[in-house]
Amino acid sequence: MTEQKISLSDLPLREELRGKSAYGAPQLHVANQLNTNENPYPPSQEIVEGIARRVAELGQQLNRYPDRDAVGLRAALAAYVSEQTGVGVTKEQVWAANGSNEVLQQLLQAFGGPGRSAMGFVPSYSMHPILAAGTQTEFISVERRAENRFAINVEEALAAIAEHAPDVVFITTPNNPTGNITPLADIERILQAAPGIVIVDEAYAEFSDEPSAVGLLEDYPTKLVVSRTMSKAFDFAGGRLGYFVADPAFIEAVMLVRLPYHLATLSQAAAEVALEHSAATLQTVAKLREERDRVVAEMRELGFDVIDSHSNFVFFGNFDKLGDAPTVWRRFLDREVLIRDVGVPGWLRATVGLPEENDAFLAAAAQMMDD
Amino acid sequence: MTEQKISLSDLPLREELRGKSAYGAPQLHVANQLNTNENPYPPSQEIVEGIARRVAELGQQLNRYPDRDAVGLRAALAAYVSEQTGVGVTKEQVWAANGSNEVLQQLLQAFGGPGRSAMGFVPSYSMHPILAAGTQTEFISVERRAENRFAINVEEALAAIAEHAPDVVFITTPNNPTGNITPLADIERILQAAPGIVIVDEAYAEFSDEPSAVGLLEDYPTKLVVSRTMSKAFDFAGGRLGYFVADPAFIEAVMLVRLPYHLATLSQAAAEVALEHSAATLQTVAKLREERDRVVAEMRELGFDVIDSHSNFVFFGNFDKLGDAPTVWRRFLDREVLIRDVGVPGWLRATVGLPEENDAFLAAAAQMMDD
Repeated sequence: MTEQKISLSDLPLREELRGKSAYGAPQLHVANQLNTNENPYPPSQEIVEGIARRVAELGQQLNRYPDRDAVGLRAALAAYVSEQTGVGVTKEQVWAANGSNEVLQQLLQAFGGPGRSAMGFVPSYSMHPILAAGTQTEFISVERRAENRFAINVEEALAAIAEHAPDVVFITTPNNPTGNITPLADIERILQAAPGIVIVDEAYAEFSDEPSAVGLLEDYPTKLVVSRTMSKAFDFAGGRLGYFVADPAFIEAVMLVRLPYHLATLSQAAAEVALEHSAATLQTVAKLREERDRVVAEMRELGFDVIDSHSNFVFFGNFDKLGDAPTVWRRFLDREVLIRDVGVPGWLRATVGLPEENDAFLAAAAQMMDD
Repeated sequence: MTEQKISLSDLPLREELRGKSAYGAPQLHVANQLNTNENPYPPSQEIVEGIARRVAELGQQLNRYPDRDAVGLRAALAAYVSEQTGVGVTKEQVWAANGSNEVLQQLLQAFGGPGRSAMGFVPSYSMHPILAAGTQTEFISVERRAENRFAINVEEALAAIAEHAPDVVFITTPNNPTGNITPLADIERILQAAPGIVIVDEAYAEFSDEPSAVGLLEDYPTKLVVSRTMSKAFDFAGGRLGYFVADPAFIEAVMLVRLPYHLATLSQAAAEVALEHSAATLQTVAKLREERDRVVAEMRELGFDVIDSHSNFVFFGNFDKLGDAPTVWRRFLDREVLIRDVGVPGWLRATVGLPEENDAFLAAAAQMMDD
């Protein structure tokens, strides 16, 4: 439509965005997609039919705005969290949004922002610093090291908290991309030291036996927020449903910054249907955990260094003789296996998929070791 | 769960949020809900069945993340905009998100933010200053005055632009809550003067005969963004689908700040189905325009001052003898008619609903005048 070609540099973009490129795992299409930690099992026929039925019922109301506060969905999430964690929570303690990204963005708008800081233990979920930047929150990285199996070194964490007094601390457990957990006792020491809020990101909680940090809410009501998602265990990444559990005062806080009617009628309804079938859905989690343990064991057998995984992916390294991480990533891709190079030198992340996908991944790994 | 009751003031909330209360029209349930500018006509049976069918097809993919860039939906929106405005646009010129609120938030993150400012002509869409605050953008209000029928005074606008050099200028046309339009010639003068970007918010465009600002994109590719929504004309408020049309460079810009996978699979699919049926849907717009003209004429007959409306609501005043705006709002509510007090002294806004709802509104107004 325009004669001359306009480029991004012709627009009055904020300075700090200039030269940046957009976030994202490559959406390549290869036979074995093990790069985005999706659950490979589709929702059951019961769920799909249930959603279609609800859509048919609700369709006549789509001209009306959704329930702004998503009360029905939050009640369903509270019931699920109570059952899954063994800690009773109510809908007043639960907040939901379009993926945990939006949940975390809202928390940073309310508790971070210009002049404030957030601390994370990296490598971790790569969206934490991006969300901090998007909300003008300074991000302070404290390193997890390979020689410590990527665990948070609590003494270093406490020293960094004392030095920087961050307004927000992120603890991802099980951690993405490394797969290991942070024990509740360590979380509690960080909670005691943190001057602001602590967000425990439990996106992968259902793949772990570690008790949920939800159990600490009673003791740290003004500090602790536990964020979660339906993208992983619930095989519901397309539904975009993230949530957090915290004292009701935190829900009041994010209501000051959330976009009104942020959660579409169909998003609320589809998630409610999925939650009705949570018991059946979580059977896929058990299958994935078994497959994960098989993949970890076989990778170690092949000579790779694999971090203990409490999640639906494995983080592996020690492939010096195969090349650096980008080279090894490419060698997997050449064998029709798409995994993720998260930018940690010498390490790569592979999602646990269907048994045949994991076979393809393991075969590619074995072949490489043989070459 | 917690023993002691925590309140919002116990949390380390950002200073500027303290004492604020959450946005929102009251979600009261009365017989005639004419307060949120929803389209009273539900989606057709064809649309509802089409969405349910798509959901049944897509359900098996809900474990996968959505198309991050919503390419299919953007192509459908481009086709619709081309047809509705008569200006050919491509999918590369269209961006979509969860309601126009998210679209506008993304634009402010990229082009506003700390140290930057946005200008609006008030009263206008009340979310503009709220979105500015949420992105730490200074908001500069330039007044629209009743004696000028709430039109933008272009000389004053140009003076304010020269004085403040805003990074973003909002022009809502047709304007909410006043219903009047800003002619393209006035928009063009503002575009020429603006040092940054100009967002023309056309949420209600389909209710007006004024040509769309999309026709100006060719001449102002580095400055102009036209935002729109499916909430109003499309009777699709529950679907939460907003979009903007601009040079492709603007789409690159918001991709730097959007949350990855921000738009759920079902949101994309439902909007695509609704767009397939746009011709039928827009017949409800014709009905609403007729009803609007009837309501405006009858309100004037009753002695109210009504601003010329190019939208699906009427803005009316001159009820001094009935009491102030909150009093009159309450008197409508007592008669089971919920309208909106937008905070403009002496004026109220009423959405045009179904004929019988408009009858109830007009009967309440007549009764009041008789009392």
